[in-house]
Amino acid sequence: MRVLVPDLPEFHALSGHDEHGVPGAEFAFYSKEQVPQVEAEGVVLWLAGGETREKLMQTPGLKWVLTLTAGIDHIQSHLPGGVALYNANRLHDRAVAVHVATLMLSAMRGLHHFRDAQKEGRWASTKTPNDFGLHTLDGQKVVIWGYGHIGQILEGLLKPFGVEVDGIRSGTSELQRDGLLSRADWVVLLLPSTSDTRGIVNAEVLGKLKPGAWLANAGRGNLIVTGDLLDALNSGHLGGAALDVTDPEPLPEGHPLWAQKNVMITPHIASTTVDLVARGAALTRDFLLTLQQGQEPEGRVLDGQKY
Amino acid sequence: MRVLVPDLPEFHALSGHDEHGVPGAEFAFYSKEQVPQVEAEGVVLWLAGGETREKLMQTPGLKWVLTLTAGIDHIQSHLPGGVALYNANRLHDRAVAVHVATLMLSAMRGLHHFRDAQKEGRWASTKTPNDFGLHTLDGQKVVIWGYGHIGQILEGLLKPFGVEVDGIRSGTSELQRDGLLSRADWVVLLLPSTSDTRGIVNAEVLGKLKPGAWLANAGRGNLIVTGDLLDALNSGHLGGAALDVTDPEPLPEGHPLWAQKNVMITPHIASTTVDLVARGAALTRDFLLTLQQGQEPEGRVLDGQKY
Repeated sequence: MRVLVPDLPEFHALSGHDEHGVPGAEFAFYSKEQVPQVEAEGVVLWLAGGETREKLMQTPGLKWVLTLTAGIDHIQSHLPGGVALYNANRLHDRAVAVHVATLMLSAMRGLHHFRDAQKEGRWASTKTPNDFGLHTLDGQKVVIWGYGHIGQILEGLLKPFGVEVDGIRSGTSELQRDGLLSRADWVVLLLPSTSDTRGIVNAEVLGKLKPGAWLANAGRGNLIVTGDLLDALNSGHLGGAALDVTDPEPLPEGHPLWAQKNVMITPHIASTTVDLVARGAALTRDFLLTLQQGQEPEGRVLDGQKY
Repeated sequence: MRVLVPDLPEFHALSGHDEHGVPGAEFAFYSKEQVPQVEAEGVVLWLAGGETREKLMQTPGLKWVLTLTAGIDHIQSHLPGGVALYNANRLHDRAVAVHVATLMLSAMRGLHHFRDAQKEGRWASTKTPNDFGLHTLDGQKVVIWGYGHIGQILEGLLKPFGVEVDGIRSGTSELQRDGLLSRADWVVLLLPSTSDTRGIVNAEVLGKLKPGAWLANAGRGNLIVTGDLLDALNSGHLGGAALDVTDPEPLPEGHPLWAQKNVMITPHIASTTVDLVARGAALTRDFLLTLQQGQEPEGRVLDGQKY
């Protein structure tokens, strides 16, 4: 079995004869600079731009693709017929949940404003403590839109902070959904990007939110109509937004989202930890060992609706 | 019973004939501009500067002082003999714990750096995900120095994030303490400021920490010798610091702490929430009703060692 994997030390270790290696598998390594022109049964896709991805998809003999991302929208349309697609939700779930919880808490504690004051060397003070507008999350209603495994973890992390959590799932009716949205202090988007979800958070939906509500997005940037988001922020209807993903992405210099008072932006790093590549390589190893035993690995994407 | 209270709407409500009022008590209101020269049995001390405090302490007939702070170091030395002192830990405990947890998570998720990038309108990116140096708190060892009620709450908030928590209490031996400090990824200071704790985190103690460890301080600024902290940061021995209190405080413009790469500073607002004044007034009401019933209210400070 030959497999194309990213040209990173952690993946080179898969060829080793120790506990990191996969006996019986042969590896070829791709990078932005070079995609090997060899036959291969599988491609492990990660940290590859559009051009690299397209070359990899043309690999002769390709039977399966394992993307080490959670999202699959960047791959699905390029996937040759008959090639199986697997994704790697569990690689990212916990860090994404931790990142979202952190953004929510930071927003309520005003850390973005205090950071700005710090950069100016200014001890921010107000007339009375109330003027800071700070909260804990106690008593806040959190609605997780796209309630799956990440949502479950997030709920577990937030519970001790005294929140009430509700989920919007594919089975939630529009009436129920709108009811939940109208009462939420926080709406957390964890949806994948599909033809059904693109632009789902538009002016109409934003208008249904309670005045002062906050929005968090760790799904995909294009779930939100960015212009509508800016309008809802500028009108003061929306309290703020914590965004790990944006549309466009990367957000270009000079984009009006950057300077919004109550917008916190991180550059699509929710799932990133110092050991992410090592964990990605370990997941790849488990995947290959499972395949070698003739079993079906986790993460087969059947219908693009994993959430 | 006459009581001096802060001149804020929430405290004026104590004179009301509704559920916010305290029947049988008479109130006089002080501010920075004016301290009434009247006899009073008690003073509720809050948001008052040094000069105001000194005037209040000279109130004729004074029997007790209730400070709505957790710390008492700013009052103790000015307290006339025979006057009872009460503090208000429970007013602050939960918000302080939430704030500390938020600072810790934000530091590990790099939110301070991403905020700086946002201010520059810059989508921060690196060669590989590992280069961001981001963590979750999973597996980190957290040592809470001054483990009391706030520490207990903090432990409950952090547990789902996968940390191991140990506490340093007054009964912890120096040997045990140093062992805990040498293994900690995070040392969280929640000590009060007393003659025993002032400057307790000095070069010697900082040198005992594991390289790369982070320090959080939500106790009092003068627990830390600021010059030694700067040295430990500049040498790279300390990973970083999250400070809600500083020495000096307020931290003056141009102080070298402001510009430290991995220092996050908030202006002594850990306990602040939008309803803090209302909660302070409600606590005052409970306190007075308890006194009126001839019972001992919570929070009597016996020896200045509440932690």
